[in-house]
Amino acid sequence: MPRPEQHIFICTQRRADGHPRSSCAGARNSEALYTAFAEALIQRNLQNRIALTSTGCLGPCQAGANVLVYPGAVMYSWIEAADAAKIIEQHILGGTPWADKLTPAELW
Amino acid sequence: MPRPEQHIFICTQRRADGHPRSSCAGARNSEALYTAFAEALIQRNLQNRIALTSTGCLGPCQAGANVLVYPGAVMYSWIEAADAAKIIEQHILGGTPWADKLTPAELW
Repeated sequence: MPRPEQHIFICTQRRADGHPRSSCAGARNSEALYTAFAEALIQRNLQNRIALTSTGCLGPCQAGANVLVYPGAVMYSWIEAADAAKIIEQHILGGTPWADKLTPAELW
Repeated sequence: MPRPEQHIFICTQRRADGHPRSSCAGARNSEALYTAFAEALIQRNLQNRIALTSTGCLGPCQAGANVLVYPGAVMYSWIEAADAAKIIEQHILGGTPWADKLTPAELW
């Protein structure tokens, strides 16, 4: 793809069940979150303007599932599949991060 | 970690041997690349200022291994472990991307 206007990173780190740090994939079901973002981008015909990439651990495991948006290094925590559309509408398209879901400042 | 000053993403997508798109991990040995960046950051005591994250596919598989730096969405291609130190010295610390290794404009 051409250089994207914005880039959404979804943590899909997976750890074993019962691991003390938990993980975004598996325990927090970030695989479904990735799919929700992918579908939401396609529905809005944004797949050639906005990049979507899975990642290893982004850091604040206790707050997963975590989603990171560049430019701006804006991180969202405790994100579920149902939140994908609002992040795209309000932040990616509207330019205003969704304040209620931002990762707490002590974690990022 | 606190919000990083810069963020280095290393593609560690792995595909089966002989896959027509190849992959950054395995065929292009980006696991060693990730380790080289991690060690280079620690040696310079940058691990609390510069984030390092592995990713799934970043797109230009034919040009792997690929490395992406934010801010700026600066992508490097055909990167090997021996290149990590120069990217950190010249780009991350010096502020000037390493022009010879940038992903071609037709790919990113």
